[in-house]
Amino acid sequence: PGLEALADAVSEIGTVHVVAPDVERSAVGHAITLFEPLRVRTVMRRGRKFGVAVSGTPADCVKLGTQALLPEPPDLVVSGINRGGNTGINVIYSGTVSAATEGTILGIPSLAISIAGFDVIDYGPAAQIARRMAERVAESGLPPGTLLNVNVPNLPESQIRGMRLTRQGNARFLERFDARTDPRNRTYYWMDGDQVDEPEPPGSDELAVRDGFVSVTPIQCDLTSWKQLDSLAEMLRPLGVERCPDLPTE
Amino acid sequence: PGLEALADAVSEIGTVHVVAPDVERSAVGHAITLFEPLRVRTVMRRGRKFGVAVSGTPADCVKLGTQALLPEPPDLVVSGINRGGNTGINVIYSGTVSAATEGTILGIPSLAISIAGFDVIDYGPAAQIARRMAERVAESGLPPGTLLNVNVPNLPESQIRGMRLTRQGNARFLERFDARTDPRNRTYYWMDGDQVDEPEPPGSDELAVRDGFVSVTPIQCDLTSWKQLDSLAEMLRPLGVERCPDLPTE
Repeated sequence: PGLEALADAVSEIGTVHVVAPDVERSAVGHAITLFEPLRVRTVMRRGRKFGVAVSGTPADCVKLGTQALLPEPPDLVVSGINRGGNTGINVIYSGTVSAATEGTILGIPSLAISIAGFDVIDYGPAAQIARRMAERVAESGLPPGTLLNVNVPNLPESQIRGMRLTRQGNARFLERFDARTDPRNRTYYWMDGDQVDEPEPPGSDELAVRDGFVSVTPIQCDLTSWKQLDSLAEMLRPLGVERCPDLPTE
Repeated sequence: PGLEALADAVSEIGTVHVVAPDVERSAVGHAITLFEPLRVRTVMRRGRKFGVAVSGTPADCVKLGTQALLPEPPDLVVSGINRGGNTGINVIYSGTVSAATEGTILGIPSLAISIAGFDVIDYGPAAQIARRMAERVAESGLPPGTLLNVNVPNLPESQIRGMRLTRQGNARFLERFDARTDPRNRTYYWMDGDQVDEPEPPGSDELAVRDGFVSVTPIQCDLTSWKQLDSLAEMLRPLGVERCPDLPTE
């Protein structure tokens, strides 16, 4: 339903090609599929072609869509609407965000949109936000290597307090493993977990969403820890590690 | 062989627990396994327990190892030695780096080590570098949320020119898809690709490795694009997006 609501909303502003995983692919991170072939299947809705279902990950879908299925690369990649927030550390595991990251790597302005709740009340408000965002991004583009990660509170539209530019915070799941024994007496483990309430830094995505605001976080593909370069140069000097002479300070 | 060389080298400085995927898991990114249980199998080498093989991703291994298999959390996570470099954009797809990222998320100082070549001449030099790095990191720790991504040129030890602190560069694969038809007349796609030689920024990991240096890049878990906050605040203002009032400038 999140994908349908999104496709309907963005079709108001342009031609939409839906290319999406054929099953739920939660927590696949930025996985891509190298050791198995990808299969595609046309999906109909109300007697018309709705889109294409791919036997792969969200990042696979963007690669395959852009480079093999679509007549030409799209102007925009919009990923979502995910059921469940993608804030804080959870972003690193998110398939929804990874599709937008993949678009960004391919040079296409991209955004990811999620609803911060599992029992989604209404995809409508998030779909309309995605449409407005998509329109703006199509007009202005995005800085290279940067995507927008949007999280919408799971509230009726009238209770959403506004939209805020935020930073990625600390929200994450803390896993535990449930060890069980199968009928052949072998142990197996189910991963389970709970959201941990870590202290959040000011201006975080998670805090904004909890306060009833839509959070918009710019995410970058450069993972270099620029802030720590000096301290690490110091720390690694005894090993003979030298700072690259032409490495800028940021 | 990369894992064995690494385990042997770091066992010179402490007790080693090997927890690794049971099959090659290239390009799984930061995937974790939620919808299938994980199975573990003890792996013997020379008549002794070498380690544990897990039916999951590198990130699964670190979670399961730390939270279910080891008697207590480790002092250090060392991931590798990967056959194939993990520089530039490739870092985003790397299972090797994701294991170190997972360690970092769990608060454990972590490093990833790869050899920049597929026909590896000798894992020895990289293993010794990993040992020295691990020793230093065990002494000094690492800044929170930061890991070290080490890439070693695929050269005999005598030809390695030194070690350099670098930034993540632009190295990446450009995929193409090979469409085939199966015996039941259905299309399937194999992902294939080539390394693209993008222009590299000064001080990049890829340039250092190409020049015969070991690259050491600090990688962070905070993906916020701090540098673009101001321009994006400007761009998104017409939509009613306000910069979070307590969001610092970096």
